[in-house]
Amino acid sequence: MASIQSADVISPTFRTRSTLRIAQVAPLSESVPPKLYGGTERVVSTLTEELVRQGHDVTLFASGDSRTSATLVAPVPRALRLAKSVDPLALHLLLVEQVAQRADEFDIIHFHIAPLHFSMARRLTVPHVTTLHGRLDLPEIITLYSEFSDVPFVSVSDAQREPLPDQNWIGTVYHGLPNRELQFSGGSGGYLAFLGRISPEKRVDRAIDIAKACGCPLKIAAKVDPADQRYFEQEIKPLLDHPLVEYCGEIAESQKGAFLGAAKALLFPIDWPEPFGLVMIESLACGTPVVAIRGGSVPEVLEHGVNGFICDNLDEAIDATRRIHALDRRACRRAFERRFSAARMAEEYVQLYGRLVANAALYAD
Amino acid sequence: MASIQSADVISPTFRTRSTLRIAQVAPLSESVPPKLYGGTERVVSTLTEELVRQGHDVTLFASGDSRTSATLVAPVPRALRLAKSVDPLALHLLLVEQVAQRADEFDIIHFHIAPLHFSMARRLTVPHVTTLHGRLDLPEIITLYSEFSDVPFVSVSDAQREPLPDQNWIGTVYHGLPNRELQFSGGSGGYLAFLGRISPEKRVDRAIDIAKACGCPLKIAAKVDPADQRYFEQEIKPLLDHPLVEYCGEIAESQKGAFLGAAKALLFPIDWPEPFGLVMIESLACGTPVVAIRGGSVPEVLEHGVNGFICDNLDEAIDATRRIHALDRRACRRAFERRFSAARMAEEYVQLYGRLVANAALYAD
Repeated sequence: MASIQSADVISPTFRTRSTLRIAQVAPLSESVPPKLYGGTERVVSTLTEELVRQGHDVTLFASGDSRTSATLVAPVPRALRLAKSVDPLALHLLLVEQVAQRADEFDIIHFHIAPLHFSMARRLTVPHVTTLHGRLDLPEIITLYSEFSDVPFVSVSDAQREPLPDQNWIGTVYHGLPNRELQFSGGSGGYLAFLGRISPEKRVDRAIDIAKACGCPLKIAAKVDPADQRYFEQEIKPLLDHPLVEYCGEIAESQKGAFLGAAKALLFPIDWPEPFGLVMIESLACGTPVVAIRGGSVPEVLEHGVNGFICDNLDEAIDATRRIHALDRRACRRAFERRFSAARMAEEYVQLYGRLVANAALYAD
Repeated sequence: MASIQSADVISPTFRTRSTLRIAQVAPLSESVPPKLYGGTERVVSTLTEELVRQGHDVTLFASGDSRTSATLVAPVPRALRLAKSVDPLALHLLLVEQVAQRADEFDIIHFHIAPLHFSMARRLTVPHVTTLHGRLDLPEIITLYSEFSDVPFVSVSDAQREPLPDQNWIGTVYHGLPNRELQFSGGSGGYLAFLGRISPEKRVDRAIDIAKACGCPLKIAAKVDPADQRYFEQEIKPLLDHPLVEYCGEIAESQKGAFLGAAKALLFPIDWPEPFGLVMIESLACGTPVVAIRGGSVPEVLEHGVNGFICDNLDEAIDATRRIHALDRRACRRAFERRFSAARMAEEYVQLYGRLVANAALYAD
């Protein structure tokens, strides 16, 4: 890139230049990065910062309380969940419109807000890609997404694609985290950890069963969404009143390292097609192995017997938790660094962006 | 239109032909017309049938269980509320996309699904108009709608515009009902009526207070939305246990005439900026005067001392209810026929369509 070329010798491939003007379009529910829980917003933050670090010209569409080294465009001053907005849909429609208006300022637009932008994106002349962060196995989603079989999608695990095999899937990109965000730790706290959301599909009740069966303390750090408040009150709260169980509420990003790093194992006894499961790689980053029940992405993220155990039922999970000391915590950290770094994630996305930009240039010629 | 013209003498104004290809785009929450409650879907049904009757070529986008003499395009087989859809948003996005794909089959597209289609509509080359059916005085709505100040809007009352005076308002069209749907009746039931939704802004508690103060029976026919279930249980249910009060649940369209026609008066003691208040004109159609508390459209729909009383507080409403026999029920029916017929509503819309089509033709030349 240091050499100077006169205009008439610029090759066609020059247009797929190595520095891209990239828009990242995040949900407005949480800031980027999120103050508390917020998997999608964390991934967008990690990707955005890494793309900037790699020299790209990045614009981040996100709530105004976001922190980024990219150029921030904020349709709303504050993240909607913590601001208790009563009409988040209206403000996300505003976001879609603002992206549409500025679309031609970018080489590539990367959406994380499916499905609100599909109609708009389909009609864009600018290359775009959408990472799907959620589950896809619901009837309404299958009906809607099938209509948009041309829109380029990225899955966050191969398993995530299963209900919609015929979309325009252009790749699977596993999530990544910055290497230095979470440190290796020895797991000296002597407890099992549950981290995330309390909801029927996350099955914190199973985590409590495992802890009781093993006679080992369990610490639960989890938020409760309004939609799950009734489930929490009726099904889970009665289970928390046990000497081995400690409920810590929702914890901040800054507390996660200490919480996970001191745990003997992370319990991930899910009961749904987990799209990715960010907490699994957070745990590995801390050197903490994961005891999971099979579902969705689990077999793609964990290596059974190396950095965790993939179990088919509760009894297997209890047994695996008793044998957790057999796993090498250093191997967990190494797996994280090798497969789930922010740099690896960003490089894979940049390769996809390059392909989409080159394709678009081809058709424009 | 009976004369035959050769191609070269067709005048430019011929393009604003008297038979229009019109798309009506209804919400999918209820069928068109609705089986039970559903103000927007009722209005869309009335308008659609009247436009067909007037000779236009009408396509109705609505749920598959709708009944219409127009051409029905159904993105979903059944109305979403009664089918208990868990993701109505996804299916409305599908609706928007289906309209976008067929847009050029129409001379004019009339939307009733604000705000989901704004970004799409703004980019249409086909003339379009959006009737706003809901309240507009919420912060998120003001933020979003202000972005779309070019999109042509119709208000259902002048009062509805107040929070957003600077939109592209092209007219106010009051709702209408078919003349023969509800018959004049003598009000011989000896009770007061409350009809609609039970929610804090509709103030059924005030209706109960009025009935008690007047010593007159009150019949309540109203649905309770899931969002208002708690309010109903905690605030309203205890008030229903009174010898003068009878709660009938949600009633069907076919029962409304008998319910309203036998009432001495309809109580409409609202506490919000009512956008239109369809039940007021249903009541007038039956010859039943309305005792209302001032708010939103009320002074535009009712004529104080002629077909109802517009009150400023509960005491005034109690006093007005005691004097209700002073109003002539025939005058109520006449006001309905003069101002709120389906034919009048459709004619006003056709005039607006004609203006929009002519404008578009002007710019296309």
